[in-house]
Amino acid sequence: MITKNQVKYIQSLGQKKSRDIENRFIAEGPKLVNELITAENCKIVQLLALKEWIDENPSASDHTEVIELSDMELEKISQLTTPNQVLAVIEKIQWKNDPEIKGNISLVLDTIQDPGNMGTIIRLADWFAIKNIFCTTECADVYSPKVVQASMGSISRVRVEYTDIESLLIENNDVPIYAAVLDGSDITKMEKISEGIIVIGNESKGINTEMLKLANVQITIQGKGKAESLNAAVATGIILSHLV
Amino acid sequence: MITKNQVKYIQSLGQKKSRDIENRFIAEGPKLVNELITAENCKIVQLLALKEWIDENPSASDHTEVIELSDMELEKISQLTTPNQVLAVIEKIQWKNDPEIKGNISLVLDTIQDPGNMGTIIRLADWFAIKNIFCTTECADVYSPKVVQASMGSISRVRVEYTDIESLLIENNDVPIYAAVLDGSDITKMEKISEGIIVIGNESKGINTEMLKLANVQITIQGKGKAESLNAAVATGIILSHLV
Repeated sequence: MITKNQVKYIQSLGQKKSRDIENRFIAEGPKLVNELITAENCKIVQLLALKEWIDENPSASDHTEVIELSDMELEKISQLTTPNQVLAVIEKIQWKNDPEIKGNISLVLDTIQDPGNMGTIIRLADWFAIKNIFCTTECADVYSPKVVQASMGSISRVRVEYTDIESLLIENNDVPIYAAVLDGSDITKMEKISEGIIVIGNESKGINTEMLKLANVQITIQGKGKAESLNAAVATGIILSHLV
Repeated sequence: MITKNQVKYIQSLGQKKSRDIENRFIAEGPKLVNELITAENCKIVQLLALKEWIDENPSASDHTEVIELSDMELEKISQLTTPNQVLAVIEKIQWKNDPEIKGNISLVLDTIQDPGNMGTIIRLADWFAIKNIFCTTECADVYSPKVVQASMGSISRVRVEYTDIESLLIENNDVPIYAAVLDGSDITKMEKISEGIIVIGNESKGINTEMLKLANVQITIQGKGKAESLNAAVATGIILSHLV
């Protein structure tokens, strides 16, 4: 059973404003939720689930409040087109230490607004063992339900921070900065790197000129066909697979 | 002005069944429509547009019927969340010759169901000058509005065919077949190719075992992190950037 106020509260976490005030977000579906339950840095506040999920996960209630729901109740609180057994209310992820930029590879995202792309890029970073993603505030919110679902649990392993990117690049000017542009060096001919900040821009607008000025190397994925641009997540994947 | 029957007809083209019967599809927005108008193999049947688009494209009516619409009328026929000036009814694309597989690089898609991924892969093929994509019938329909919009005009340059893939692979067994799997040869260490059929499978189910048996080389994008899989479009992009 769930009260009207609880329904309202969970629905409100679909909005960035409420997530920021409450410092919480939601994640849905057995695969994702079970992964986040076991993640060290994820504090689950509450689990709302169908009987079938609760029966299959008897230890879930050891550390967290578990509320049993009917299909109809789950439908009310779910952000998915097809609600999927369980919804978790989770505290925003806390990272113990400061991000290590020196000696590592980090990603910078400038105005990646599509939540699907944002989630896919987080998964990609995880795939290539990249620990940090720094975003302009124009990027999609990492805790928006669509980003959380698209990231498939990688949000617990990749730190995503929203910050003033120009200051970040200036402060870290001893780390090489690579910017993805349309007319830079051919990415397929570059050496692999072990340290660097890779800046990915918006698909249609590219990278902000002030940021671009701070880059040391401009890199490009050369096309032979007539397509005008690549999807930002695909471009990130190609760049990481050649550089990392 | 547009009649109720016209509205109904155009709405029906949102469904695969109607598109197959009518042999037509729709495309929306000035950028995409203007690109398809100039494409050699696209026969525009009808343009339905706001006055502002018609004023900016006076020659559009030279070869095609152009119907002026109000904002409200466009909203009724549009498949977009935010209708965008113009909608074109187009005949399904006709390709003059048979696809050339020998001596070229082709893509095979097994059960790529997400229309966004499908459209992104078509754009990617175009970027890397790949002319042919062969799909299992479980793949998203290339003429579905979401695929058309995501492909950004690349559908006029890349041939997408739905066919029996096993027969296709058997008939072309003199062309090397590469299959993307989880434990094959590291894609970053492979030589570039000038001929081949690259088979991409469904993100969660992989490639059908019968098809896999027909492959000559199994290829993999090696990850160092903990993410379980890559988005199918991203994986295609990485593979093409290394092989092509």
